[in-house]
Amino acid sequence: MACEDAKESLLSELRDHYRVNGNKDIRRRNMCSGTASPAETNTLEQNEVKCPLAPECIFEKPRFNFKYVVMLLAVYLGGGTLCFFFIRHQIKGKRTNGILDAIYFSVVTMTTVGYGDLVPDSILAKLFACIYVFTGMALAGIVISEAADYIVQKQQILVVRAIYMGEKLGPNEVLKEVETHKVKYKLIMVGGLLLVLIMVGTLFLFIVEELNLMDAFYCVCSTITTLGYGDESFSTRGGRVFAIFWILSSTICLAQFFLYVAELYTAERQRAMMKRVLSRELTFSDLEAADLDGDKVVRAAEFVIYKLKEMGKIDQEDVSIVMESFKRCDADQSGTLTESDLMKSQPS
Amino acid sequence: MACEDAKESLLSELRDHYRVNGNKDIRRRNMCSGTASPAETNTLEQNEVKCPLAPECIFEKPRFNFKYVVMLLAVYLGGGTLCFFFIRHQIKGKRTNGILDAIYFSVVTMTTVGYGDLVPDSILAKLFACIYVFTGMALAGIVISEAADYIVQKQQILVVRAIYMGEKLGPNEVLKEVETHKVKYKLIMVGGLLLVLIMVGTLFLFIVEELNLMDAFYCVCSTITTLGYGDESFSTRGGRVFAIFWILSSTICLAQFFLYVAELYTAERQRAMMKRVLSRELTFSDLEAADLDGDKVVRAAEFVIYKLKEMGKIDQEDVSIVMESFKRCDADQSGTLTESDLMKSQPS
Repeated sequence: MACEDAKESLLSELRDHYRVNGNKDIRRRNMCSGTASPAETNTLEQNEVKCPLAPECIFEKPRFNFKYVVMLLAVYLGGGTLCFFFIRHQIKGKRTNGILDAIYFSVVTMTTVGYGDLVPDSILAKLFACIYVFTGMALAGIVISEAADYIVQKQQILVVRAIYMGEKLGPNEVLKEVETHKVKYKLIMVGGLLLVLIMVGTLFLFIVEELNLMDAFYCVCSTITTLGYGDESFSTRGGRVFAIFWILSSTICLAQFFLYVAELYTAERQRAMMKRVLSRELTFSDLEAADLDGDKVVRAAEFVIYKLKEMGKIDQEDVSIVMESFKRCDADQSGTLTESDLMKSQPS
Repeated sequence: MACEDAKESLLSELRDHYRVNGNKDIRRRNMCSGTASPAETNTLEQNEVKCPLAPECIFEKPRFNFKYVVMLLAVYLGGGTLCFFFIRHQIKGKRTNGILDAIYFSVVTMTTVGYGDLVPDSILAKLFACIYVFTGMALAGIVISEAADYIVQKQQILVVRAIYMGEKLGPNEVLKEVETHKVKYKLIMVGGLLLVLIMVGTLFLFIVEELNLMDAFYCVCSTITTLGYGDESFSTRGGRVFAIFWILSSTICLAQFFLYVAELYTAERQRAMMKRVLSRELTFSDLEAADLDGDKVVRAAEFVIYKLKEMGKIDQEDVSIVMESFKRCDADQSGTLTESDLMKSQPS
């Protein structure tokens, strides 16, 4: 609840901010482009209701619904379990309980851990395992990029709160801090979770599977990296129940961790690039090049486009496409868009 | 050679194109921003020599040198081989030749295939394997994102040539086609390579390791997905020599394949988003919001920024930072940059 309140107050603050900068969120509709189909307009209006600050909405809407991803995962694992259960006599190795082994085998296969403590032993089982691991990899990609990101985004606020506990940051400051150092907090968050998962896994293997501490840690590392030599694995009933949840979450968590390291690295590089581009000396030829409308002066917006191109954030193709659209909207061909252009393009 | 010629002629064509659009590549230097350090300016000038079309250079310079990545990989595998060779008596399983097994074990561990046909059998060996697999995953990330991308970018031209073989495209058309459908050709390229690797692997296991065809294919799938149950693996000397190269290339290739599928998906979504944003009706409040300098008219550049923000290509933060830099450059505070602004900011 507190989090929702904080978001709401930041949203209203930002709304004010954009109002000052000439950006209103009251949207009256008017005709300009003739290419919009009624269906497209509808979708857009629905989106705008969800996202009151469009187009500068700072809270990215997660592309997949979290529930949708969890459901997909459940269906996938459920389907795998059913199939592997029906052909359970074509799978050889250390068995415990029919259904349990089928889920365990599905998870171990899907995450590509592949201990080898249970292996397919018929053409049908082998073929099915091949198909299952390929589709599992694709699904893991979706889960890692979508659902996990969604959870982490939500949890970041807690991380910032924990870090600045002594300094009593207000909810708005927390949200701003999260926004500025997004990737850093994601990394801290996932790194912390990973440590917890490693410790829990090691302790579990030590206590329940009765491995010695070194072997337990070795098995944990071998599992979360999806190496899965298979000399140590989960062989008891309790162990396999635990493994189903633990393997899924820890392998996803490590992949996510590496993803965020890469993201942080990219963000740092982009920041450095930005600094370099903005601190570079400006030349006469830069002025000529930046002058988009050819009126011999470079306005702020032209300067912004020129520099963003130099930073590699946008490319000439993006600019050209939007420029064409601008020409279509500019009904009186004056080189500027005014209210009269909108009036003219309005039917009747 | 032909490829280099084609690139050169496309470059000159593009140079002409940008000249028409007011973008010159003759660069005279002049002072504006006072924050550039001599070191930074130097780096930038060096970059410009390499990239004659900056800032719209269409041939992205690969971030890592390809040789550098191969060297890194060689050092990493060499180091692993040496260590595992020295502790070879602490590794149990199917042995063939000391050095060969050490390289094979390094590759199987680094790629997280982890068959389990060779497993560490002492605390030292286990610890080392743990460290090796973690660092290997990080390295694999670099290899997949950098080196492979670099190779594929170079090979794309061949793919387009092969596809349009009958139609006799000139070198410029080929390069343009590559530029427009970059991701599509990357995907075709890597997909084709993957198929070849799967077939070669299956045939090899069938002929040299004497598996039946189904088992050979099953072992191939189990390997390239890094599942590595380990019930089927490379156990002969010849098999392990082959495996060293084949496992490295095929696992990287599959990862790359999934990466390009994701990239293609993102590109398609972006194209759809662009279409939606540009075909949307323009309203009076849009005009107000797009008017960056507050002069009541929306010029082309302002429109471009507004729409690119709506597409999510840039955000308000990017724009604000560059706007600040603009204000610093605008010596006479006129709201426009002209040659006189550059003169004024030049230290006599």
